[in-house]
Order: sequence, then structure tokens, then C-alpha cells
Amino acid sequence: MNWALRMSSRVLLRKRTAVDADTKPTRIVILGGGFGGVYAAMTLEKGLRRRDDIEIVLVNRENYFVFQPMLAEVLSGQMGILEPVIPIRRLCPRTHLYFRDISSVDVEKKLVTLAPGYRPRPLVLEYDHLVIALGDVTDFRFDPGLRAHALPFKNLSDTLRLRDHVLRVLGEAEIEDDDELRQELLTFVIAGGGYSGVEVAASLNDFVREVGPKTFGLEPEDIRVILIHSKERLLQRELHSSLGEYAQRILRRRGVELMLEHRLRSATETHAILDDGSRICTRTLVSTVPSSPNPLVESIALRQKKGKIIADRTMRVEGSTSEWALGDCALIPHPSGEGDCPKTAQFAVRQATTCAHNILAAIDGRPAKTFNFTGLGSLGVLGHRTAVAQLPGGLKLSGLLAWLAWRTIYWWKLPGIDRKVRIALSWLLDLVVPPELVQSKFDPPQAMVHAHFEPGEYVIREGDVGDRLYIIIQGKAEILKPGSFVSEPEVMAEVGPGEIFGEMALLDGNRRGATVRCLEPLDVFTMAKNEFSHLVNFLPDLRRNVEQIAKQRQSTTPEPVPSDDACSTS
Amino acid sequence: MNWALRMSSRVLLRKRTAVDADTKPTRIVILGGGFGGVYAAMTLEKGLRRRDDIEIVLVNRENYFVFQPMLAEVLSGQMGILEPVIPIRRLCPRTHLYFRDISSVDVEKKLVTLAPGYRPRPLVLEYDHLVIALGDVTDFRFDPGLRAHALPFKNLSDTLRLRDHVLRVLGEAEIEDDDELRQELLTFVIAGGGYSGVEVAASLNDFVREVGPKTFGLEPEDIRVILIHSKERLLQRELHSSLGEYAQRILRRRGVELMLEHRLRSATETHAILDDGSRICTRTLVSTVPSSPNPLVESIALRQKKGKIIADRTMRVEGSTSEWALGDCALIPHPSGEGDCPKTAQFAVRQATTCAHNILAAIDGRPAKTFNFTGLGSLGVLGHRTAVAQLPGGLKLSGLLAWLAWRTIYWWKLPGIDRKVRIALSWLLDLVVPPELVQSKFDPPQAMVHAHFEPGEYVIREGDVGDRLYIIIQGKAEILKPGSFVSEPEVMAEVGPGEIFGEMALLDGNRRGATVRCLEPLDVFTMAKNEFSHLVNFLPDLRRNVEQIAKQRQSTTPEPVPSDDACSTS
Repeated sequence: MNWALRMSSRVLLRKRTAVDADTKPTRIVILGGGFGGVYAAMTLEKGLRRRDDIEIVLVNRENYFVFQPMLAEVLSGQMGILEPVIPIRRLCPRTHLYFRDISSVDVEKKLVTLAPGYRPRPLVLEYDHLVIALGDVTDFRFDPGLRAHALPFKNLSDTLRLRDHVLRVLGEAEIEDDDELRQELLTFVIAGGGYSGVEVAASLNDFVREVGPKTFGLEPEDIRVILIHSKERLLQRELHSSLGEYAQRILRRRGVELMLEHRLRSATETHAILDDGSRICTRTLVSTVPSSPNPLVESIALRQKKGKIIADRTMRVEGSTSEWALGDCALIPHPSGEGDCPKTAQFAVRQATTCAHNILAAIDGRPAKTFNFTGLGSLGVLGHRTAVAQLPGGLKLSGLLAWLAWRTIYWWKLPGIDRKVRIALSWLLDLVVPPELVQSKFDPPQAMVHAHFEPGEYVIREGDVGDRLYIIIQGKAEILKPGSFVSEPEVMAEVGPGEIFGEMALLDGNRRGATVRCLEPLDVFTMAKNEFSHLVNFLPDLRRNVEQIAKQRQSTTPEPVPSDDACSTS
Repeated sequence: MNWALRMSSRVLLRKRTAVDADTKPTRIVILGGGFGGVYAAMTLEKGLRRRDDIEIVLVNRENYFVFQPMLAEVLSGQMGILEPVIPIRRLCPRTHLYFRDISSVDVEKKLVTLAPGYRPRPLVLEYDHLVIALGDVTDFRFDPGLRAHALPFKNLSDTLRLRDHVLRVLGEAEIEDDDELRQELLTFVIAGGGYSGVEVAASLNDFVREVGPKTFGLEPEDIRVILIHSKERLLQRELHSSLGEYAQRILRRRGVELMLEHRLRSATETHAILDDGSRICTRTLVSTVPSSPNPLVESIALRQKKGKIIADRTMRVEGSTSEWALGDCALIPHPSGEGDCPKTAQFAVRQATTCAHNILAAIDGRPAKTFNFTGLGSLGVLGHRTAVAQLPGGLKLSGLLAWLAWRTIYWWKLPGIDRKVRIALSWLLDLVVPPELVQSKFDPPQAMVHAHFEPGEYVIREGDVGDRLYIIIQGKAEILKPGSFVSEPEVMAEVGPGEIFGEMALLDGNRRGATVRCLEPLDVFTMAKNEFSHLVNFLPDLRRNVEQIAKQRQSTTPEPVPSDDACSTS
């Protein structure tokens, strides 16, 4: 047995050596720290108050639970940036917490493998009962343009990244004299007209329309906020038509442009591209769709339908004795007998408590309970003290009253007194102090990133500062003759998959000597100048390759633009 | 004139076209958004209330001003993470703000060139008066080990990164069964015994000793916090010896180990290396030294001494009529006649107001004022309601009284009512709710990073998960025969500058087939698996290179470790 084997088996067995083999505790492993996972752990902790024959383990990538309904308030600055999240440790003090990525789940051997931590070794956990509550993901896998250029809005990092981005865009718009670029910077596009999309559009709109003119000195009419939705009405699936129409009226009155019956197809750095081929010039694109199955869930060998695990109304996975599934990653029959449970926090929380009860019942040989919850209605906020609510018994609310109901209900539902106090104070503060404007650069520039371009777009322009190298993954581009950019573009060469361009400015100076324009939808992998220099400096073979390409191109190109031109015209 | 020239000249001249050439405003450009820069802008704004013949421009990388003395409170969770920073826009509403990096300063042509924003073009600003207030930097340039593995503690991002890191380390220590690694994870090393180092050590110590045992279930005796200082006493330069000794007593009593008369020489991922060659095993190394001249300042063609710009007591740069310098990047004679002004916020703020006055005096042809401030004493916090203070007239304070003085004075000095309210509330909250534990992953994993190793350290170990490729910049390493790692290491090959290793696990599977050990101080450039795969997939020449190397090595190597071994021993 080699070293690696010994190390991992030691890890594997560690929790079990603490007690005698006969009395080793039953281990319940919960995957996921959303509403489903955290409420399952909380309910289990309550049920285990006086016993130590059962241990609870929870695995999640982040060390916090996100109270999703309040995430949009961070965007508009009504709430501090950490307020809608709660450290899981505070909610489940008796649960063993593993904040790692999950590499794989083996239901046959009853093992969960986690990604390495500080040492490059996987960590393997045995389980007796497994609760799968992994939720779903905003999945841009199938479109390289969206993956590279659209921002999701699902967790705290997404929110902070979007906030930072919006603040940067406003600051740059203030000092930009190029009208076209300023217009791009001040156009904000949101795709998806469900609760999440509507809430983001509403709070983003409130925020930019408040601080844009007042603090950044921008013209209100230069600001555009566009919400794209595939259906003919906002919140069509979630709410009664009169409430959906009310939401549309409110958003339109506050300046949000609605593009209904349209879908976002792809994106580039400067455009949102719709299904009919039309393009919106923008530097800010948020997409709350498509909400797709979690790839990890798909990899688990349990019966699934459309990427969701099939469970019964006790939350037990079909055909399993030790696996349970709930929340957005599970397909659970609706107690009414019609269809399946909807993907909402209300349902996830109740499924979690039922599941926790049933696991303990299974361990103790008691009968299982079935899930009987049918929903309490639905609430969505439209920004600026307005909301829509549909309550049980067909009661409908809108406007300030619905907004007060929204705040009261969600505040009440916040787990933990600590966060309740902080958020109440934050709401009070919001009445007296202006919104937070600190841009914290949570998202430092990456050395290597993907980018997508659509035909006709310029990838690099002659005279630009050359700060990245481009490697073509797929698609085609044309290199235009220097000097020919403005008048009649003359094509010098075409480049395709596996070819690189943009290396010349990085090797010889820092201005682009030629213009490159996209011919066919282009996916590139770009590397920052600094990292590229390191690579060519330390990998002699690569340097020879790149120099050769540069030499061939140079022989067909006139003198490059001198690099000090920016200062020569004062 | 080509396109690039036209674009940049347009940018260059934009602010000037707004008004007639005869009446174009005088432009004062301030570089830096610290105490010096922001207070200069604030004072100028006050002086310009009723005139529009002068415009003020401020350039800073961040959009916020950091109230440095309170940064350490964020670490200990006594303050929210954005509270000690203030958006510059709120402090200087009439100043034109450019949040960009500065590329160069040309004092001959009176031009400042900024890095590109959303379009890859530099932005050039003309100036009539230039205020240089760029501060200094924590500079690890000369040691690749420190650059790669030590955390500075200068601005908000440093603080957030350190906070996140400490929370991750505590969480991993809780689930780690390897005693050696747990000890490494729970050892925190801080270098520098000035105010900054002492404050970081004190608040980090408070934080880990509070939450470590209580929330993470760690043993208090496993936690080590070590403060390294080159002098024989803490705060030797800043305070009277009795106060320095008091600080030492307090820190020691609270569990901080002091290593006086030692210097940090270098660092690796797992070690802090001292000047006497001794090594401390740690995963957390904060260095507040060396405080070095800002490289941008050094590049400006003005008379300097030790990287600081020489100015007189009116803040005017020696031999200049349009350039002014102040704060930590300037050398200004002390009004007492002895030596130069110290690098403190007190001095920077007063220099800024004098400078602002003198610029307006120069524009209007009035006489200049000279700087007459000689200091108001000095204050430093030792964590947990204790501080030391040395006031004018030789008055010395320590303990709770000094801490109350510290809070009162700094709270009072906070610019802006908005932040005063938020911080007061935060302090109140701190009395009733436990410290914040959200780990926000502000620092996502980088595709390409530098790393440093010292002789004898393992770079990769057989059986580890292989997730990075290594390119040697300098130094030497040996590759050990598979299986020989534990018993008697047998050397298979030596690798040196320009060579790569670690490619095999990335190409064939994911476990390391051999062990690599550092022979001579080793600097490597590492690339993450994902990015490496992209590169070799899309650059055929590079792929051929790498495959060739792998093939050569493989021919001298037995079978690699199978990659599914982690699961095979349950």
C-alpha cells in the first residue's frame, strides 16, 4: 500500500476512530447549505439534543447561508454587503462543517469525496444517510458568450461582483467623453422575468437612477435599464395576471424598459444578443436564466428526470434506503396530487424538516411522515417600497402594503436573532444615510479569461494599448492592414482555431499595430501581458514559437505605431 | 495623424473644450487618495466655493479613502468590513475623480497618463498644478518568497483577504486530523513591531483566541500568534520606552509570542524564514515591513532622496513652480528644524491643508504659508479595550483610558457624518452580537501564481492530487523515484531554470507519480490545471513540447499511481 493510499484511508476513517467500532455514531451527511440543507441540519440538531449516537455533517462550498430574498437589497445599497448572509456555523453549532467543493458521490459505497484543502489530497466521508440538497445553478455551460460576459445573480459573490461593476461603470461614465461608450456604460440589461430577474432589475434601476444623477453627475435620460423576458408577461408563472401587470406598470413608470417575448441568446463584451439576432450595446449584462440542474447532481447514480433526483413525499430517493433528496435538485410530488413541488424556499424549508424527521424515524425504526405542505402564497419586491403579494385564499396585495408585508415576513423568517438585529438597524440607517458607494474590487483581474465575439465586432484595434494575447478556440477573425481601419479595411490575413494573435504588441511595444475583426462567432482564450511575458521568458520553446509567428507577420506589415504617441499632441 | 493619435488627443483636450481657451480653468491634479490627497482636495473645495476658474482632479486606484487606524478592527470583527473606508466621492463632491492606475507622470510637459479604462486607450491629463501624495508601499519586490507568500496589511483588500484567510484556516483546522498540518494552520506570524504590526497582531490574537475555541472547537493551547520585530523593543521608534514595555507585557499576557531582534528574511507556502535561518511552520504570514518608496514616485523626474520627493515647508517641490509633494512620499523639513516630518496621518493632513492654501495663493499671487505643525502625540491600540498613548507635554496614558481616548479621538477625526453614524452603531452592535464570521472569498484562485520554496521543502509529493504545472524561474529541484519518498529517497533527475515539472499528472490522470524536493532556493511560476489544459489544447506547438518532456520522463518512471485509490480502502 503506497503513501497516498495510507494518507487517504487515514482521512477516511478519522471520525470513526474516536469511538469504539461497536458504538460508532450513525453519520448523516448533508450536501448543500441553502434553505434545504441548512434547515435539515437545524431540525436534526433539535432532534438530537440529548443523544450522541448520531453525528451530522454538512458540506457546502461557502461558509455562509444566503437569505436569497434579500440579496437584491444589497445591490441597491439598502443593506450592508454581508447582511443577507449568515455563517452556517451560527445556525448549526453542533454540525461538523466542511467548506469544500464536492468532487464525487458514490452511492454504492456510500462515500462522498471532497476537493483537497490546504494539502493536495482528497477527503473522503463515509455516510449512513445522505441528504442531497444541492439546489440548481445558473448554467451558461452551453453558451461561451454568456459564460464569459454575463453575470449570474445567485449568491453573495455574484451580488458583490455586480455591485462593484455597476459602481465602476458609473464612475467611468462620468469621466468618459466618447458618447457611444458612455451610452454603452449606462445601459444595464437583465435577462429573466421571474422573481429574481424582476428584483434585480428593480433594485438596480432604483440605485443607478438615484446615485447616477445625484452623485455621479450623469444625465437621467442617458441611463437605460432593460429587462428581457421570454414570456408575454412578467412573473407569468409565479403570480396572477393582475399582479404581473401591476409589476409591469410600476417598473415601466420607474424607467425600466421591458422587452417581452424575447430571449437572450448570447453575449460579448459589448453586446447582449437576442434570439432574433438584434444586439443591445451594453457593458452590464445580468442573466438569471437558465436555471439548470446542478452538474454534480447529474453525476450521482440515482434515478433522475431532467437532472432532478426522484424522491417520494417522505423525501426518500426512489429505490434507496440511505439517500434523501429535497429542494430545487429533487422532484417531489406535490401534496395536492397535481404535478411536483415548486422550486421555492417555502417548500425547501418544509421538505427539510420532514426529511430530518424521517431520517431520525428510519434510524429509530419509527414510521415516516409524508409531506403535506401546499404553499402559503408568493411575494416579490419591486424596489422602492413597492411589492406584489398573492396570499392564500386568493388574497392579492400590491404597493406599499405588500412591501411592508414582504419586509415583515422575511425579517421574521430570518434565522438567528443576530442577523435580525443587524438587518433592522440597517433598514433604520437606510432612512438617514445615503447608500454605500465603496467599490471593493472583489474581483481582481484574471490572468487568463475566455471571451466571445460576434461577427463584425472588433477584437483589437490599431493604436490600442496591447495588454492581452489571444488564442482562438473556435471561429474566425480577419487581421486588417494597418492604417486601413478607418477608411476601407484591407484584409491582411485570416486566423482560425489554434492560432494566436495580439502577440506583437506584447513583444515589441505596447500599441496594437493592426486591427482584428471577428468573421465567424469567435471564442478566444486571452492571457494578460504579464503572465504571457513570464511564459515566454521561462519556456524557451514557446518563445521560439511565438517569435516565429511574429516574424512571419512582421514581414508582411509596415512599421508598428510608435508607443509614445499619446503624449505627442498636447 | 493616425487613429490612435486622434483618439488620445481628443481625450487629452476634452476638459478644455468646455470653456473658451481664454477662460479655461486652472487645473489642479492630485495624485493619491490617502490622508494627504483627500484632505488637499477637501481643503481646495472649501477655498473654491464661489469660483469656477479652478478645477480639481483627483486620481486614485480605489474609489475610497481608507481610515487606516481602524483597519485592524475589521480583522477582529468589531467593525463591519466596509466601515473604515469612505467613498472619496462623498468627501470631495466637487472634485473630478479618476479611479485608475497611473502609468506615468511627465513634469516637463505637465502631463499625467492614466491606465486604460473600458477601452484599451491611455487617458492623458494636463495639469497646471500637480500635488503628489502617493504615500509609500509595502514592497516585497526584492524577495520572491515574500511577494508570493506574505500578506501585506495596508489597504482594505489586504484586510479582507487576511480575514477570509484566517476564517478558512480556522475552519480547516477544525476538520484536520493531521496534527502537524493543524499546528501549521493555527500558527499566525506577523512581521513588524511598529503601530501597524502591533495592531494586526493584537486584533488577530483577540479574534482567533475568541472564536477559535468557542466557535471552531479548537484547543486554546494549539493557537500560536507570533510577532517578529527587528528592534529590541516594540514601538521603539514611536513611543517612550515605558509605553513600549507596557505594550509588550499586555501582548504577552494575552498570548502573543514576541520574537524581538529578529527579521523576516523570506517565506514559503508553509514557512516563515528568519534572518538567522530558523523557520516557523505557518500558513498565515502578515508582513507590515518593509515600507518602501512608491515605484511610481521614483519614476518622476523630480529631485529625490531615498525615493522621496524633496519639498520645502510650503510643500512646493524643490526647483519647481507647479509641483507639490506631501505625506509619506515627500521629504519635508520638520518645523522644529531637526530632521524631517514623520510619516503619520497627523502630519499628512496638516501638510495637505497648507499645500492647498499655498496652491491657491500661488494662483492668485498671494504669499505662501509655511508649515508649522510639530505633532500632537501618538496613539496605538493593543486590542481588547487597551491602548497606549503619548500626548503632548510628556503625558503618557495606557490601558482602558488610553483606549477610550483612542476611540474618541479617531471617531471624531473620521471625515463625514455618515461614517460616524455607521461606526458608532457598529461599536454598539459589537457589545451585543458575536463577531462576523462570513468568509466571502474575495480572493478567487488565480490561474497563474508565483511560489517560492526553500531547500529541503517538498514541492509536490507522490500521491497528491495534481492540480498545477510548475515552471522554474530560478533555483534547482530534484525529482525522487516513485515509492522512494518515505524510506530512502532516490534521486531520479534534477531540474533547473526554464524547465517544467508536474505536467504528467495533469496530462494522464490526477495523482502525482513522483515527489519533487527543493535543492536550491526555488522560484516557480505555477499554472492551474484548467488553464494549462486550455493552453496545450489550443497551442499545438506547446502541446508537442510538453508531451515530449512527459514521454522522456515516463520512459524512466514506473507506472503512475492509479487515480481512484482514495476510494478503494473503505
